[in-house]
Amino acid sequence: MDSKSYVVQMNGSAVHGKNAVNAKSLNGTAVNGKAVNGKSVHHVSVNGSIYPAKAKSRRQRWDVKASEMANNTLNPIRAIVDGMKLTPNPDKPMIALSIGDPTVFGNLPTDDTVLQAMKDAIDSHKYNGYSPSIGYQKSREAVANFYSCPEAPLEAKDVILTSGCSQAIDLAISALCNPGDNILAPCPGFSLYKTVAVSMGIEVKLYNLLPEKSWEIDLQHLESLIDEKTSCMVITNPSNPCGSVYSKEHLQSILKVASRHCVPVLADEIYGDMVFPGCSFHSLASLSSDVPILSCGGLAKRWLVPGWRMGWILIHDRNNVFGSEIRQALVKLSQRILGPCTIIQGALESILNNTPQSFYQSNINFLKSSAELCFNELSTVPGLTPIMPSGAMYIMVGIDIDHFPDFSGDVDFTERLVTEQSVFCLPASAFEYANFFRIVVTVPEEMMVEACARIREFCQRHYRPRSRDSNELDQ
Amino acid sequence: MDSKSYVVQMNGSAVHGKNAVNAKSLNGTAVNGKAVNGKSVHHVSVNGSIYPAKAKSRRQRWDVKASEMANNTLNPIRAIVDGMKLTPNPDKPMIALSIGDPTVFGNLPTDDTVLQAMKDAIDSHKYNGYSPSIGYQKSREAVANFYSCPEAPLEAKDVILTSGCSQAIDLAISALCNPGDNILAPCPGFSLYKTVAVSMGIEVKLYNLLPEKSWEIDLQHLESLIDEKTSCMVITNPSNPCGSVYSKEHLQSILKVASRHCVPVLADEIYGDMVFPGCSFHSLASLSSDVPILSCGGLAKRWLVPGWRMGWILIHDRNNVFGSEIRQALVKLSQRILGPCTIIQGALESILNNTPQSFYQSNINFLKSSAELCFNELSTVPGLTPIMPSGAMYIMVGIDIDHFPDFSGDVDFTERLVTEQSVFCLPASAFEYANFFRIVVTVPEEMMVEACARIREFCQRHYRPRSRDSNELDQ
Repeated sequence: MDSKSYVVQMNGSAVHGKNAVNAKSLNGTAVNGKAVNGKSVHHVSVNGSIYPAKAKSRRQRWDVKASEMANNTLNPIRAIVDGMKLTPNPDKPMIALSIGDPTVFGNLPTDDTVLQAMKDAIDSHKYNGYSPSIGYQKSREAVANFYSCPEAPLEAKDVILTSGCSQAIDLAISALCNPGDNILAPCPGFSLYKTVAVSMGIEVKLYNLLPEKSWEIDLQHLESLIDEKTSCMVITNPSNPCGSVYSKEHLQSILKVASRHCVPVLADEIYGDMVFPGCSFHSLASLSSDVPILSCGGLAKRWLVPGWRMGWILIHDRNNVFGSEIRQALVKLSQRILGPCTIIQGALESILNNTPQSFYQSNINFLKSSAELCFNELSTVPGLTPIMPSGAMYIMVGIDIDHFPDFSGDVDFTERLVTEQSVFCLPASAFEYANFFRIVVTVPEEMMVEACARIREFCQRHYRPRSRDSNELDQ
Repeated sequence: MDSKSYVVQMNGSAVHGKNAVNAKSLNGTAVNGKAVNGKSVHHVSVNGSIYPAKAKSRRQRWDVKASEMANNTLNPIRAIVDGMKLTPNPDKPMIALSIGDPTVFGNLPTDDTVLQAMKDAIDSHKYNGYSPSIGYQKSREAVANFYSCPEAPLEAKDVILTSGCSQAIDLAISALCNPGDNILAPCPGFSLYKTVAVSMGIEVKLYNLLPEKSWEIDLQHLESLIDEKTSCMVITNPSNPCGSVYSKEHLQSILKVASRHCVPVLADEIYGDMVFPGCSFHSLASLSSDVPILSCGGLAKRWLVPGWRMGWILIHDRNNVFGSEIRQALVKLSQRILGPCTIIQGALESILNNTPQSFYQSNINFLKSSAELCFNELSTVPGLTPIMPSGAMYIMVGIDIDHFPDFSGDVDFTERLVTEQSVFCLPASAFEYANFFRIVVTVPEEMMVEACARIREFCQRHYRPRSRDSNELDQ
């Protein structure tokens, strides 16, 4: 910073400090109205203060501009959705299958244990003051215990509590990447990786997921994107927006790519453990022997409280590759906004340890049956190709766009689905992927049934079995 | 970003997208092992995928470094305190007067209304889902109503809710400043401005506060620092660490400087309304006719719940200088981590509207009498010059260091105060100011009395009335 020093006269005794104007050197070198260091300066001398005033520095008019960082903070979902004309059919009540918030319909409440833990934390009066910026030791210990496993042991020191999984992702990218670096992220994928990275001048290279292989990663494509500026690889498992859950073998293959090129992994595992019966979730860290991993998670989805903003980073170092440097980086960055709400931190141990298994189980059963209902319904709709998920709370549906000559693509298709049927699904263009749409499967059963029926009606109306020169019924 | 496109083959129908490898153009231009654009490439062809693999891009070993941003995220308080040897005298219980957290001693609990509002929000089950990233409309309306005044009216659209006042400051600086810009901040002053700014490549120029004028701003110095790269001026009122509260006239003079040079103001008013009886708090916005102001505040101090991380930015535009651009910038930046905890947002209206005046009043009465006690005690201690505060919860005490030849400065002085007397005060070097220390006046009365007695004993032991060649009793 500035190496100058100042002298403040107070009660006759000089108080010396740093980082301000050195009155002595000014007195020695500057003369009223003369040039110092080639710049025109003059002195203002009032109340004994002598400082140079830069005559040419004045702005003559107001001109406040937003920063480049703000201008570069892009939200692909908003960019797409805000540009759509979403005017529902007045004869049909709106059904929004677009919002990744499991709480909106009221059919998936959090558990009473979770709410009671919060009230207990409030009543204790112990959690109103500041916590350490990375969270209370006891709360971090609770997270460490909950996620520790023999293959990937965790202690409190390996946990950073954050204001939601979003801040966990923000901190992880901020700690690992410099402007000019690049990160690899899934396509289709959650848009926040790009929002955060691009705002900081970090390039995002999108690697393809393969719908025909239940959205496994195209490993050749992934590997081809790595270069010397690749500072991390984002793996989302289970996936938003795909609902895919990777097998142990596929995860091992991903880790091999990371290992070959020495690229650390940011594992977005916010949907961890939210997998359908018959399927298993493996954390990337539990399979890694040499790849260091920052795993991001939180209470949002599994405990159905996304608004509470309780997230975390689990630091899974290997062979001291992250070392104290990355740990320190995360601690330092956490000091900017000082961690998540202390009441939730205070409730965390009880939430993790006392929420009954039946709560998790009944939610996952609901999500599975809702996904199956949707998949079965839409599988028989002409022109649609739903891909059955194995977890999370989404299903992606492919549009055979060649058979829908009325629409130019998924945005057009989903916009018209609102206009005609009052059903809103998020076009996959919001995930930088074309000709798919995403359905959120947390909606109540009767709503899902109705929505699927309307989607069927819509597709039947617009589907053209063969070529584009068939009759255009609409026009 | 990337303008390339990809083709994924799925069930025989091509799905076109953006931002990945353009298979067609690769086929057209690249040949196995030959040079494309001067770079050596070869193709990997597996499962029909054809991508160039950059042969020279592989890292041969792990080398994960922390980002420059993380390395540049400096915490002056930690830098100073972590370097101190803080070993208390085992014969005296430790008294920490260093922590700016009013909750640590248990003598200043928040009001029951505040806690009840939280429990009501939990019981309503209405605040578990995502809020808009800038906060619920209703909660923003409550803040707008609470702070609106005829001279500076506010509506919900003028309020951004944040994860504590720290995030409010972070967002405000991020929205207004680019790397290479500078901001003006008080010296002595709260260290977060510098932490946030420097991490983003923004220079911090410190303007002097004048202890002999109750810490008013040296306006000539302030003005002399402004140049064409000055993108905002941070004004902290009431002040941490000084406890000063500026008069209407002084605030008007500050606004004139901002107005003359067309520099917007970031008003850190987290201690707003926390002023002692007989003194008045004027928000900068209530006095501004042309200077646009972002005022940062929150629940932390006045409602005594700093851990809850509930803060806000009040946008006080004037003549549409901020316009939609700065508003949009704040909205976009808020989308990175999605706002404060929804339970507290849900409780906010009730907290603001139902907390009884008697709560505010009794807290401020306590702070005033504690500050007076401390001031009166230390005023008669040889070598110390306390500056009586008018608000907030701090008092700054000057050290006539020429009379303490045993110590090289405030860090040394306060370190030895711990060693000998088990009293810890923050050296003002932590606020980039020398030869002062800060006392937090939220401690219980008996502790303050005891602490002051120990400080007196310490000073009496080390004070030398005249020159440095008097007897050194210690050695």
